[in-house]
Amino acid sequence: MSGNRFFASDNTAGIHPAVLSALARAAEDHAAAYGDDALTAQAIERVREHFGVEVEVFFVFGGTAANVLGLKAVVASHQAIICTDVAHINVDECGAPEQFIGCKLLAALQVGGKLTLEQVASRLGGIGIPHHVQPRVVSITQATEYGTVYRPDEIQALAHLAHSKGLFLHMDGARLANAAASLDLPLRALTGDVGVDLLSFGGTKNGLLAGEAVVFFDPARARQFHFIRKQGMQLASKMRFLAAQFDALLADGLWLRNARRANGMASRLAAGLAGVDGVTITQPVEANAVFAILPPAAVRRLQATYRFYVWDEERSEVRWMTSFDTAEADVDEFVSAIREAVSLG
Amino acid sequence: MSGNRFFASDNTAGIHPAVLSALARAAEDHAAAYGDDALTAQAIERVREHFGVEVEVFFVFGGTAANVLGLKAVVASHQAIICTDVAHINVDECGAPEQFIGCKLLAALQVGGKLTLEQVASRLGGIGIPHHVQPRVVSITQATEYGTVYRPDEIQALAHLAHSKGLFLHMDGARLANAAASLDLPLRALTGDVGVDLLSFGGTKNGLLAGEAVVFFDPARARQFHFIRKQGMQLASKMRFLAAQFDALLADGLWLRNARRANGMASRLAAGLAGVDGVTITQPVEANAVFAILPPAAVRRLQATYRFYVWDEERSEVRWMTSFDTAEADVDEFVSAIREAVSLG
Amino acid sequence: MSGNRFFASDNTAGIHPAVLSALARAAEDHAAAYGDDALTAQAIERVREHFGVEVEVFFVFGGTAANVLGLKAVVASHQAIICTDVAHINVDECGAPEQFIGCKLLAALQVGGKLTLEQVASRLGGIGIPHHVQPRVVSITQATEYGTVYRPDEIQALAHLAHSKGLFLHMDGARLANAAASLDLPLRALTGDVGVDLLSFGGTKNGLLAGEAVVFFDPARARQFHFIRKQGMQLASKMRFLAAQFDALLADGLWLRNARRANGMASRLAAGLAGVDGVTITQPVEANAVFAILPPAAVRRLQATYRFYVWDEERSEVRWMTSFDTAEADVDEFVSAIREAVSLG
Amino acid sequence: MSGNRFFASDNTAGIHPAVLSALARAAEDHAAAYGDDALTAQAIERVREHFGVEVEVFFVFGGTAANVLGLKAVVASHQAIICTDVAHINVDECGAPEQFIGCKLLAALQVGGKLTLEQVASRLGGIGIPHHVQPRVVSITQATEYGTVYRPDEIQALAHLAHSKGLFLHMDGARLANAAASLDLPLRALTGDVGVDLLSFGGTKNGLLAGEAVVFFDPARARQFHFIRKQGMQLASKMRFLAAQFDALLADGLWLRNARRANGMASRLAAGLAGVDGVTITQPVEANAVFAILPPAAVRRLQATYRFYVWDEERSEVRWMTSFDTAEADVDEFVSAIREAVSLG
Repeated sequence: MSGNRFFASDNTAGIHPAVLSALARAAEDHAAAYGDDALTAQAIERVREHFGVEVEVFFVFGGTAANVLGLKAVVASHQAIICTDVAHINVDECGAPEQFIGCKLLAALQVGGKLTLEQVASRLGGIGIPHHVQPRVVSITQATEYGTVYRPDEIQALAHLAHSKGLFLHMDGARLANAAASLDLPLRALTGDVGVDLLSFGGTKNGLLAGEAVVFFDPARARQFHFIRKQGMQLASKMRFLAAQFDALLADGLWLRNARRANGMASRLAAGLAGVDGVTITQPVEANAVFAILPPAAVRRLQATYRFYVWDEERSEVRWMTSFDTAEADVDEFVSAIREAVSLG
Repeated sequence: MSGNRFFASDNTAGIHPAVLSALARAAEDHAAAYGDDALTAQAIERVREHFGVEVEVFFVFGGTAANVLGLKAVVASHQAIICTDVAHINVDECGAPEQFIGCKLLAALQVGGKLTLEQVASRLGGIGIPHHVQPRVVSITQATEYGTVYRPDEIQALAHLAHSKGLFLHMDGARLANAAASLDLPLRALTGDVGVDLLSFGGTKNGLLAGEAVVFFDPARARQFHFIRKQGMQLASKMRFLAAQFDALLADGLWLRNARRANGMASRLAAGLAGVDGVTITQPVEANAVFAILPPAAVRRLQATYRFYVWDEERSEVRWMTSFDTAEADVDEFVSAIREAVSLG
Repeated sequence: MSGNRFFASDNTAGIHPAVLSALARAAEDHAAAYGDDALTAQAIERVREHFGVEVEVFFVFGGTAANVLGLKAVVASHQAIICTDVAHINVDECGAPEQFIGCKLLAALQVGGKLTLEQVASRLGGIGIPHHVQPRVVSITQATEYGTVYRPDEIQALAHLAHSKGLFLHMDGARLANAAASLDLPLRALTGDVGVDLLSFGGTKNGLLAGEAVVFFDPARARQFHFIRKQGMQLASKMRFLAAQFDALLADGLWLRNARRANGMASRLAAGLAGVDGVTITQPVEANAVFAILPPAAVRRLQATYRFYVWDEERSEVRWMTSFDTAEADVDEFVSAIREAVSLG
Repeated sequence: MSGNRFFASDNTAGIHPAVLSALARAAEDHAAAYGDDALTAQAIERVREHFGVEVEVFFVFGGTAANVLGLKAVVASHQAIICTDVAHINVDECGAPEQFIGCKLLAALQVGGKLTLEQVASRLGGIGIPHHVQPRVVSITQATEYGTVYRPDEIQALAHLAHSKGLFLHMDGARLANAAASLDLPLRALTGDVGVDLLSFGGTKNGLLAGEAVVFFDPARARQFHFIRKQGMQLASKMRFLAAQFDALLADGLWLRNARRANGMASRLAAGLAGVDGVTITQPVEANAVFAILPPAAVRRLQATYRFYVWDEERSEVRWMTSFDTAEADVDEFVSAIREAVSLG
C-alpha cells in the first residue's frame, strides 16, 4: 500500500489512538482556560516525573515555538546562539529566532550532525567587545537532524564548556524520545543530569496531534515565561487539550514504545539495504532517520510513488524518516522498491 | 451541576463531538505535512464557500496569532493600527502586536464596544510627518468584546473611511459566527461584502479544539503570508488536524448551530434576569455575552460556585459568556443562583 | 531681523561658540575610536560631577535614541512603560520604543503636561496576568512637553510609587537643564536625589551640535548598555566629538547659562503678552516654552514671517520655544508682531 | 611623533579643517530642524551631482545605521541578506540587522574580502519554501574589509545575478571614496552605473566628525525611509550639521583628495615593507589598509607604541589603516619601527 506510509518525515504520521482517546475524554466538560485546570497540572507533573520535580514546564503548539520562545527567555537581542549549520533553528524556522529574539545565530559546521567542542570554542571570541554579538547559548539537537544521537558524555562536555563561559545549554528535543530509546536511557539522563538548562521536548513527531513542552531545569529562568509564551502567540486557550496529549504520551510509557517502534523501523530499513549495490548509507542510523546516497535516476523513480526529501541535491543524498506507526510491511515493501529502483541503474 | 458549565468564557467549553470525529477520521493515515495535503485543500475550499472563491485562507493555532500575523502582512513597523481601548489586540495579547510587528496601536475609547467613525477620524493626524506613526489599519472586533454586534452598514462606513485614507479594515472575528447568527446574515455579508480586507475567523470559541483562519479578501496581500506564518511559529506540521476541524465546522452549518445555541443561551440568561432587583444589564445582549452590574457581595457569593470574570472592579460589573454547549438547564440554574445571591443584598 | 531667530523649537538654534571651539580643539589629532579615549573619560567625569560619582554615563547622538536605548536596558518586550499621552516617547518617536524594545506604552492623560500619581496607579492593573503587558517603567519628561516643571517632591512621589511596585522611574531630560535653571536647583536634586533611576540628559536643545547622555543611577542596570548602544546604532566611532561637546557644556556652567537665557526669554515673551487682548497663555511658563491661544487669523499672519508650531489646531493653541541664543531684541520684536497680528482680529 | 597618528582605523583621525569650517559657518544662525532647511537641500544636491539627479539621499549619524536602516527599507523580516563572513554587517554591528530588521544574514566565505558569484549562487536555495528565509539582498563592501577593491565589472556581475533572481544589490560604502580613488573612477561608475540599488556612502572615515548618507538609486524604494530613519533613531534634529559636512566634503573634490591621501599612505607603508624579512603582506593593497603577518613578538613590541588591531590572532596577522591626515613622516617612522621590531625576531 505504498504511499499510505510516508517516509518524508515523522510528522506525516497521524495521532496515536491513545492520544486521541485522551482528547476525547478531555473534550466533554468545561474547564478553566489558559492552563488553569486540573488536567494541565497533572500533565506538568507527568513531565516532572521524567525530568525532575523542580523543573518548570510549559506546553506550546509547535516545535519552532518551543525553541524560539524558550531561547527568548535566556537570550537578549545583543547575544547569540551557537548551533550547527544544519540546526532546525538555523535553517528550518524561517528566521524566527532572529525575528522574535532579535539575536544572531552563530552556525558551525556540523560533524555527523553534531556540534563539537572545538566548533563551540571557535565561536566564543569577542566577549565583552560591543561590536560583536555575545554568545549566550549553545544549542544542540537530540536526536540530531542527521538522525545521530549525542551520548550523555558528549552532552556533558558541551555543558561544561558552555557553563564555564557563562553560557546556557539548550536542547532541541523534537526527537528526544528517539534518542532516549536509542540509548536505552531515561529522558533525564540525556538532559538535566548532564547539564542541559533548557529543553524543547517534542511530542508532535512522536504521536501527538500537536504539542511540545518547554522545560526549564532551573526554575529561576522560567519566571517571565508565562508572558513570553502569551506574547509569543502560543498560550492555548483550551490548554487542557495540549495537556491531555502529553498526559497520554507520558502516563504509561507510550512515548518510549512509539520511539522504539520508529527507531526499529529505521534500523530495519537500513538493514534491508545493507549490501545493496547503488545504495550508500551516509550516517549512522541511531534514531528514526536513514540518510543514503543513490543514483539520481533511482531517486526519481522512487519519488514517483513514495514521498521523501532529497537532502543534498548535489550528492544525490536522500533522507528517509520512520514514525511511531510505520509497519514492518511498510518498510519491507519500501526496501523492495528501493532495490528495484537502483537495479535499473 | 453548577461548575460543570462555566460562564467565564466560551473557551472553557470543550470540543464539539462532530469536530472530534473529524479529527479521529483524519488521524489514521499518513498525509503530507505543513498543509500540502488534500484535507487542508478541502478545508480552504470550505472557507471560500463562505467568504468568496477569491479569498486566501491560512489556518493557525490561536486567535492572538491570527490577529497579529494577519496584521503583520499589511502593517510596517512605523505604521499604526487604530482600534478600541478594549480591543483584544490592545489589552489581551500581552503586547504581541508591538513585539511581532514592531508597530504602535492607537486606541480610541469604545462606544458600546465599538469603534466610531469620529474616533477613527481623530486618530488620522500626522500623515506624512516622520515623527509620528502612520495609521495603516482600522481594526474592529465582531462580535465586540462587549458582546455587541456591528451592523453591516456600520462596518461599511468604517471601511469607506479607512479606504478613503489608504487604510485597510481588519476584523478580529474570534466570534464572527456569533455576530452572523445574531444578525441572521451570511459570514460574507459582514466581511468581504462590506469592505473588510483582512479577517481573523475564529474557530476555538465555537467548538474547535484549537484553530483560527486568517482570511485575505485581496489575494495580493497574502503573498508573503506563508513566510510570515512560519516565522510567526504558527505553521502546523500536522496541518490537516487544523483543517479537519474547520471542515467539520463549515461543512453542514455546524458553525451556525453552535453560534445560535451560544447566543440563545445568553439571551435566555438576560431574559431570566430581567426585572431582578440588584441586577443591571449594562450592554445590549446581541451575541453570547451578558454584562451586568450586581452588588459586590453578590458577586463574591456567586464566584464561590461559578467561574466568571469581574470585568470592571470599580463598577462591580461582571461578564458572563455562554458557549456552544451551554444547556438551558445550566442557564436556568445560574439564573436561580444569581437571583438568590442578589436577594441576600 | 524676523526669521533669523525661530520660535519653532530649541533645536532650530545653532551651536554655542564654546562648544564649537571644543570640537575644533578635539579635531586635530588622532584618538582611539568608540570612546576609548581620554576626552570621553573626562566628559564622563564631568557628568558624574553633576549626578554622582557612581553613575554610569553613555553618550549617544540623539534624544530619541537616549530614551529608547536607555529604556531597552530595563524593559523586556512583554513589559510596559507608563507615560503621558503627550510624552515624546509616545507621540514623537515614530514608534521607536515599540519597534526597538518591542514593548507597549501605556499612555495616561497629562495634567499640565505631567503624569499624576492617580494616572500611574490606574495603569498598574493586570500584574502577573500573562494576557496583559506588565508595567515596568514610569517615564516622565522634565521640563515637560508643555514647558512646565516637576518639583522635586512631585518626582519623589512618583519614584516612591514606582519603586513600591517594582517599577523604575525614567526621566526624559531633553530639557532637564531648563528645569534645573527654573527651580534653581542642581541637576542631581531633580534626578538621582529624588529617585530617578534612568535619565536621558539632553544636550542638543541646549547648545550642542548633537549629543545626549544616558545616565544610569544604578550601575548594575548599565551592564549590557555597551551592547545595546552599539546594536542600537548609536556607538559613535569618533566618540570624542560627542564627549568634547558635553565637556564644554558642563565644564564651567555653560549648561546653566544657556538654560537660564532660554528660560528668561520665554518669561520675557510671556510678560510681553500679559494683558494683550486676544492672547491667552495656556500653561504656566516655567521653562523655555510659551503656549498660547490666539485667533486663527492672527496665527496665519504670524506664520507668514515666523516659524512656530500650531500645537492644537482645534483650540488654535500655538507653541513658542526660546533657546540659548534667543536675544531680548528677538523677543521684543516678536511681541510686537504678535500684538499687531491679534490687533487685526 | 609616534602615537599621534594611529594605524588602528581611519576613524581615529579627527575632522578635516574644511569640514570644521563648514560646521562653524552653519552654526551661527537659526534654521529649520529635521532637514527642512536650505543647507540640507543643498547637500542632497551635492550628493546627486555624484550619483545622479534621480537618487534619493538621507543623512544619518553613523555607518551601522546607514547599512541597517537602508536595508530595512527593502528587506522584510522573513527575508535574508547575503554577504561575506567578514562583512561589517555580519560581524561588527552587534547584530543590529537581526534586531532592527528581524532578518537573517547568510554569510559566505570571503575570497580576498569579496563575495563571489559562486558564493552568492550557493545561498539562493529554498526560494518559495516557507521554512527557509528568502534571500532578498546581496550586500558587498567597497572597499572591502580587507582593503581590496571590487572592479566595476565585478560589481555589475553581482548585480546581474542578484537582479536576475529578484534581489537587490546593496553596497556598504563606508570607504567607497577610497575605492573610487583607487580605481580613478567617479563614484557613480562604481554604484548606480553598475547596478547598485542601495548605498551606504561613508563620510566619517573620510574626514567628517560624523555623517553617512543612505542613497537609493530607485526613488520608489525610498518612500518609507523618512519614517524608517526616524523610527531608527537617526533623524538629526539639527540636520544641517550633517548636511554641512557633506557639502564641504563634496563641494570641491575634498572627498577625493582625502581618499587619495589615505590610499597613498597605505601604498607607501606597503612599499616601505617590501622585502623586509619577517613581514608578509597578505592582501593586495588597493585602498587604505595593509594586512600583514609578522612574528607575535614583533607585534607585541609595536603595540607598546602604536595602536593597531591584530586581525587574526592565530596567523599573527595585523591590520594597519591610514587616513586622510596620515603624513609621509608618520608612515616612514612607522616603517622604521616595524623594521626594528621584526629585526629583533
